[in-house]
Amino acid sequence: MSRALHDVATGTLFGVALNYQGLLKQRLAEFEQPPYQKPPLKPVLFIKTPNTRNRHDADVVHPGHGEILQPGPALGVVMGKSASRVSAAQALDYVAGYTVVNEFSLPEDSYYRPAVKAKCRDGFCAVGPELVPTAQVTDPHSLAITLYVNGEVRQQNSTANFVRNIPQLIAEISEFMTLHAGDVLITGTPEGRVDVQPGDRVEVEISGLGRLVNTVVAEETGAGS
Amino acid sequence: MSRALHDVATGTLFGVALNYQGLLKQRLAEFEQPPYQKPPLKPVLFIKTPNTRNRHDADVVHPGHGEILQPGPALGVVMGKSASRVSAAQALDYVAGYTVVNEFSLPEDSYYRPAVKAKCRDGFCAVGPELVPTAQVTDPHSLAITLYVNGEVRQQNSTANFVRNIPQLIAEISEFMTLHAGDVLITGTPEGRVDVQPGDRVEVEISGLGRLVNTVVAEETGAGS
Repeated sequence: MSRALHDVATGTLFGVALNYQGLLKQRLAEFEQPPYQKPPLKPVLFIKTPNTRNRHDADVVHPGHGEILQPGPALGVVMGKSASRVSAAQALDYVAGYTVVNEFSLPEDSYYRPAVKAKCRDGFCAVGPELVPTAQVTDPHSLAITLYVNGEVRQQNSTANFVRNIPQLIAEISEFMTLHAGDVLITGTPEGRVDVQPGDRVEVEISGLGRLVNTVVAEETGAGS
Repeated sequence: MSRALHDVATGTLFGVALNYQGLLKQRLAEFEQPPYQKPPLKPVLFIKTPNTRNRHDADVVHPGHGEILQPGPALGVVMGKSASRVSAAQALDYVAGYTVVNEFSLPEDSYYRPAVKAKCRDGFCAVGPELVPTAQVTDPHSLAITLYVNGEVRQQNSTANFVRNIPQLIAEISEFMTLHAGDVLITGTPEGRVDVQPGDRVEVEISGLGRLVNTVVAEETGAGS
């Protein structure tokens, strides 16, 4: 029914931090302290490197060693063609479709440091199960997003609560860098991240886009160490 | 004489911040303030996204609009095979060779924010001119690195001044993420970054590795805006 997701979404995985209003509100006090003094004026981006790519129905390895693992339910926007300096009004013309993303992370207590270590462990970005073309999504800004852990609802929000909507994100990012066909914008995870453990079944559901399922597994003990 | 660089170094471009002793020293006072309270204990990584890839003899577009452009002379370490949790003692076995990198950036006054906007403009990571196999480099930790702008020396340092040497970097990074064949570690730029302007010829020379040449050009006026 749609082109296979993993044949299309082959590009860079761009994360957008702080893109849910509730999350930004929780952080406002922090942003009034040094060194920021004010909330971010532009999207705060991070990269999920290629080693983080993961799929529907695949395992996600818990880091172990006392580290904490948190799922990151998010709407993924898959670019359909190269976008450089496009206006918000035209931005959606550059989108191929939408998918579900689970942007796993170690907890981040601050936004002070480049987030590679927290966000770029192997398999830390599950994408899927499929690419839903834009024509099949009436309004990407009114989608329910739900995280289930072992069948229980643990996070619930709506893309209506984005700080920046999809056209704004594409316009502001493509102002300084070219987005390419196959790149994926991970439009942010809502507030209230939860911890998961080896053995947990973690599911992200977005209305109309399906449900992305992953299982957390324990680190192989002693591997290479 | 060697495999073509751009057929081999096709992977992720990992930047390492603060990896020259002089640079770290300049920043120490800042790291004693909140929110850090202490200098970083682990390598501070950032990503140069695929749109930043650029080559020897190619143009680099100045961002214009009052922004400042700075070259970032750096030794590039090209991985030869996948490395997960390798020890420092074995790390160099995973390296295919070395090359010259010019990691262009807007100035960063702090290390507080993810650096995508400063570091990931199109063409902001020149790599080349060639891949020099490890066997041809007696000691990668005693290479002179020099930045020329219009033929004049503007930065001069040595890889002897790394904070973390190449085996340490590979060991510490591969501890939490797999480095793949073709990935490039950009081992840091020395202190004293300079500003460059449209029309400038920018060259990075590393002893034994050659000279990477790029020309800064003005932004196309009015493009897409």
